[in-house]
Amino acid sequence: MKVVITGGCGFIGVVLARRLLQRGTLTGPSGAPEPIDSMVLFDAVVPDQRPPGLDDRVELVAGDVSDRDTVFGLVDRDDVSVFHFASVVSAGGELDFDLALRVNLDGGRTVLEAARARAGTPRVLFLSSVATFGGSAMPSTVSDTTKQTPQTTYGMTKVIGELMINDYTRKGFIDGRSARLPTIVIRPGRPNAAASGFASGIFREPLGGEEYVLPVTSDTRVAILGIRSCVAGLIALHEADGAAIGDDRALNLPNISASVTDMIDALTRVAAEDGRELGPITPRPDPTVQAIIGGWPIVLEADRALGLGLPRDESLDHIIREYIEDYLEA
Amino acid sequence: MKVVITGGCGFIGVVLARRLLQRGTLTGPSGAPEPIDSMVLFDAVVPDQRPPGLDDRVELVAGDVSDRDTVFGLVDRDDVSVFHFASVVSAGGELDFDLALRVNLDGGRTVLEAARARAGTPRVLFLSSVATFGGSAMPSTVSDTTKQTPQTTYGMTKVIGELMINDYTRKGFIDGRSARLPTIVIRPGRPNAAASGFASGIFREPLGGEEYVLPVTSDTRVAILGIRSCVAGLIALHEADGAAIGDDRALNLPNISASVTDMIDALTRVAAEDGRELGPITPRPDPTVQAIIGGWPIVLEADRALGLGLPRDESLDHIIREYIEDYLEA
Repeated sequence: MKVVITGGCGFIGVVLARRLLQRGTLTGPSGAPEPIDSMVLFDAVVPDQRPPGLDDRVELVAGDVSDRDTVFGLVDRDDVSVFHFASVVSAGGELDFDLALRVNLDGGRTVLEAARARAGTPRVLFLSSVATFGGSAMPSTVSDTTKQTPQTTYGMTKVIGELMINDYTRKGFIDGRSARLPTIVIRPGRPNAAASGFASGIFREPLGGEEYVLPVTSDTRVAILGIRSCVAGLIALHEADGAAIGDDRALNLPNISASVTDMIDALTRVAAEDGRELGPITPRPDPTVQAIIGGWPIVLEADRALGLGLPRDESLDHIIREYIEDYLEA
Repeated sequence: MKVVITGGCGFIGVVLARRLLQRGTLTGPSGAPEPIDSMVLFDAVVPDQRPPGLDDRVELVAGDVSDRDTVFGLVDRDDVSVFHFASVVSAGGELDFDLALRVNLDGGRTVLEAARARAGTPRVLFLSSVATFGGSAMPSTVSDTTKQTPQTTYGMTKVIGELMINDYTRKGFIDGRSARLPTIVIRPGRPNAAASGFASGIFREPLGGEEYVLPVTSDTRVAILGIRSCVAGLIALHEADGAAIGDDRALNLPNISASVTDMIDALTRVAAEDGRELGPITPRPDPTVQAIIGGWPIVLEADRALGLGLPRDESLDHIIREYIEDYLEA
């Protein structure tokens, strides 16, 4: 079978691709595990060379996800599975509304239409987000039945994507599933401008022996999920029995609600056990970042995902150890 | 000012137009009542002549709501208010998915873009529906904070419309408001195929001295709203102070949760008081109709709308008397 990952050259896309190639198979439209003989990582911009861990089953393709011919050209087999990750993200969507609608809304619809055009009801796994929640009526604990009143154009287009996944699935055009991601950690590389970046930087920079300037207060709490569990969860949701998911195809992924204090405690514990020297964490609260994060739910219930067998992280300590294994020791 | 009503030649559009012309003014972008000097009823098909009660301020225009040039040509003044009613309805959307997306999704976006292109942040009143609720997780009582998991393409596009109204408003592109309609009664004219039609037919046919074949059981309960209160509510929501509405611009309209028994009791009471002879009501339950109606919420809370001063019907008896005045005695 063929696997198409849109937005596939991002952090989650590459880790997913690597994991799928290691497994070698995926349960897609046939309902049974099939060998993956072809994979496309599609993105607006792609690197010159395949990222490490990806073999010659993988093709990197650059293009516009809202371009019909391009997308139909990628989703060109009946034995196909699609992971639709391509998206203008939150800050980008606030800067360029029209681009966010073109990429996220028109692009999403183009991907769904391409899948619909195939025989065999392809499975489409859509990446949604905790940013679909928000607004003055949002409770501090949100579940899969909490009304989504997003406060960003990004979040708005993600709810629309979930609604379209549900309706295309109800109509039998595709077999869709949507995964609402909490904050995924620990992202490797340099710090970026995302408000959620603090939940990676707070681990990554000290572990790299560098200072981390912490933009939020120690009682700040976010729902976080380690990248390994994230990818395992996305695969499990893709492979789950459709009937067990039911008529609402969108699920919050399992996660840990962790405060900054919890994060620092776990980091300190792991470093002490390993005899690692940590760079300093310097609190310097940034009201802008604090306000953005304050708009997110702090507890994200994921009962349905857990019921389907999606994995949860055992602890923050485990997430930190996985990062050390995957990025510092590798 | 100019008023544009898309889908304006439907039942609600014509009654709204008539009421606005009687008032003569509307509070739109200026924030104060302004004389209405021009009104367009735009629809896919328009009658040869203006419906009764509409004067020469009104132009009837036929066209495709997803056609950009057409819609921008209608929304051609800065002192404009838009009532966006145009929609493929539920049964039509189930028959033709692509048409529903073109009219409801692309058409809605075209209307919002036309309003955004005007200076002065036009008010846009979007007609949403109780059909935005549904699915296996729906509680029997729904409120403005109940998650919307529609089970029709029509309902899906209506939720998307609400989301876009919220985000275009948040961005300051327009000043949008969405009204979620319960079943609106009593529709004049001949019976149609809509499942909701029973809640009009059960009054209209007996009052006209004809037999009504009732397709649902006597304990069937729906949320209903009389057409006069509906139109008054739409105008009140259009004119409401934006800050008082808050960041979720969509509201359930006030309504009465009435069983078929309640309807028959009220009808019998009013007829007895007036000395009217009623045609017979013959129960002949239709499992298809019963199933569709069984998927709707039976209690639709409207606390926010009531808080904004939107009217509610005093009783079913009042709704029946209004129909007699407006359609049988007029």
